Amino acid sequence: MNKVIEQTFSVPFRYPVCFTTRLFDTQNPLLADVMRGEKIPKAFFVIDQGVSEAHPRLIGAIHRYAAAHQGAFVLAADPLVVPSGEQCKNDQASFQQVLDATNDYGIDRHSYIIAIGGGALLDMVGFAAAIAHRGIRHIRIPTTVLSQNDSGVGVKNGINAYGKKNYLGTFAPPSAVINDLTFLETLEDRDWRSGISEAIKVALIKDASFFQWIVANAKALAARDMAVMTDLVVRCAEMHMEHIAGKDPFETGSSRPLDFGHWAAHKLEHLTDYRVRHGEAVAIGIALDSTYSYLKGMLTAAELQQIIQVIRDLGFELYVPELSGEVLLQGLQEFREHLGGRLTIMLLEKIGLGVEVHAMDTELIQEAATRLKTFQMEGQNVSS
Amino acid sequence: MNKVIEQTFSVPFRYPVCFTTRLFDTQNPLLADVMRGEKIPKAFFVIDQGVSEAHPRLIGAIHRYAAAHQGAFVLAADPLVVPSGEQCKNDQASFQQVLDATNDYGIDRHSYIIAIGGGALLDMVGFAAAIAHRGIRHIRIPTTVLSQNDSGVGVKNGINAYGKKNYLGTFAPPSAVINDLTFLETLEDRDWRSGISEAIKVALIKDASFFQWIVANAKALAARDMAVMTDLVVRCAEMHMEHIAGKDPFETGSSRPLDFGHWAAHKLEHLTDYRVRHGEAVAIGIALDSTYSYLKGMLTAAELQQIIQVIRDLGFELYVPELSGEVLLQGLQEFREHLGGRLTIMLLEKIGLGVEVHAMDTELIQEAATRLKTFQMEGQNVSS
Repeated sequence: MNKVIEQTFSVPFRYPVCFTTRLFDTQNPLLADVMRGEKIPKAFFVIDQGVSEAHPRLIGAIHRYAAAHQGAFVLAADPLVVPSGEQCKNDQASFQQVLDATNDYGIDRHSYIIAIGGGALLDMVGFAAAIAHRGIRHIRIPTTVLSQNDSGVGVKNGINAYGKKNYLGTFAPPSAVINDLTFLETLEDRDWRSGISEAIKVALIKDASFFQWIVANAKALAARDMAVMTDLVVRCAEMHMEHIAGKDPFETGSSRPLDFGHWAAHKLEHLTDYRVRHGEAVAIGIALDSTYSYLKGMLTAAELQQIIQVIRDLGFELYVPELSGEVLLQGLQEFREHLGGRLTIMLLEKIGLGVEVHAMDTELIQEAATRLKTFQMEGQNVSS
Repeated sequence: MNKVIEQTFSVPFRYPVCFTTRLFDTQNPLLADVMRGEKIPKAFFVIDQGVSEAHPRLIGAIHRYAAAHQGAFVLAADPLVVPSGEQCKNDQASFQQVLDATNDYGIDRHSYIIAIGGGALLDMVGFAAAIAHRGIRHIRIPTTVLSQNDSGVGVKNGINAYGKKNYLGTFAPPSAVINDLTFLETLEDRDWRSGISEAIKVALIKDASFFQWIVANAKALAARDMAVMTDLVVRCAEMHMEHIAGKDPFETGSSRPLDFGHWAAHKLEHLTDYRVRHGEAVAIGIALDSTYSYLKGMLTAAELQQIIQVIRDLGFELYVPELSGEVLLQGLQEFREHLGGRLTIMLLEKIGLGVEVHAMDTELIQEAATRLKTFQMEGQNVSS
């Protein structure tokens, strides 16, 4: 007896990605409207410590906002403040605190867990929300360029384990993403800059005209022009969302076209103990894989020159010593292992057009790293 | 500035639910065929200790099967044997062992984690598979009636936390479910019987003719007639799958129509420290909510009589002392909290037709419990 019944179904997902300013001004109805429903839900806020320190009046503003919108939601408890950055993904204490809170405050599947912070915090809180009660409603309020234009608008969450980034996590679309551009004003220069690398990335593999727009606006971006940054964030978020909706949102295949420059970036972050931040590592990873594409004869010298120059103009480093060690090459294997299946790496055919390859020449990677060291030290032309 | 971009997409899921016998006979190609692909994947088996003890030659058979089907898959490591039943969901040691194994053996997203066991083991392993690398391919091989006709063919996984059943988990469709009916032959009578309660449940709320079929075959089932049991498992699994595919597979609403009798069942399991097994608790939960439906004037005495009688004929208890305590009523609140939103409980309008209510009369629940105690002790008619 061999009998087979095929089970097939589709699960629809829908969520708004909103752009606003002064989100917790009691006059701004956006957040309250997102939660408003038949019953008044509980809301539990988890806040990035760095954000809370940069905005000492934030927690008071949340309380006032909740008081002004009692008909839409109620606070389940005082906001929880947890350490910023990779630390909250590396040690599991913050993750456990969020889970404990869901139990302590009776936060059910129709309540909201609202995370305010950078990509790392959003990943950690999103993972806790995704697994408690098999999924509590989750609103992301990204506060960095990187999370507003890229990670925060997507469907992934996770924490680090076994020394590997995002080893544990799920694909779980949020209930809503709210980008409050006001948060960008208080970012350190490093964090302001970091997020731009994901825009360069998506432009390089998909949209030459967006890349030329970034080139033209690089100096304004470096000078912290808010209007230009707003355009960049909205356009980049939109491209990211289109990509996710377009095919394979839960990444069942072995390709991850949006991860241009990321195999080296992930490894560099780890090798530098997160001294190099994600966006900075991505800028170096983009420079590395672009140089590799040039050495492979895929990009012209002029194209590479333009890529290197825009990364420089924005104020990024092109090289860190960890780029030259053989250990960097383990990043290829780990990248393959995380996705499973064949090694699949995105390179550049030309500016605006990525192409996937299934093998990389390790000597050429090392040669590309050496070139980056030279560019960094001497600021010289790429073809010299 | 308030700008909103709506993100919408659908994620399609597809998996086969197979029925077979002698799955690890090297001549049975089913399991190898399920995994066969472009590349030869790794497979990692996790086995329920109870199953491994009842089938001392199982691990050897798996090794022989793998050797005979090297072109389809390779073993990542020796199978891992973990404690049976709720224990593997209550303490997190087994869960951690499975996660560790994914890291130790380089089990990537295109590898397979294959779980062989009862519903509790499948839940635990499925949860680990769902979160490592954001989801490793997972094959379920349920070995009990309960898991073959109900939980194992669905999309849920989980472990217990904070003293609450399935507090942590996800919705994650498996790659395949393989029901090897041979495993049912070695079940203890209690476990053979337990799974039948989910068939009674689905029949009572959806299909009067299936219920009458169970009534007609109750004695054959109690006498362990394998052909009758096979029919029951296939029919019940099919109904369960149709229900999942039909609407809201990831349960975003606050209703869970398939959970007839389950609010009390979940609480009873916990109150009895899992002395009462899930299927036994469900039988009592069905008896309780059927009696409540009768006391509410929804079911006739004859209908209730038939329900109580079939539960008895199958050899189930109708009552345990924990049913009478006030603490049972907490189960209502916990059931609501787990799903969130409004309390939504399924009752019976008549045999074959469930109806949802949003409040229960606690005195009437206690009266129903008292009636069950009487039925249990005296075997008397329901209307006396």
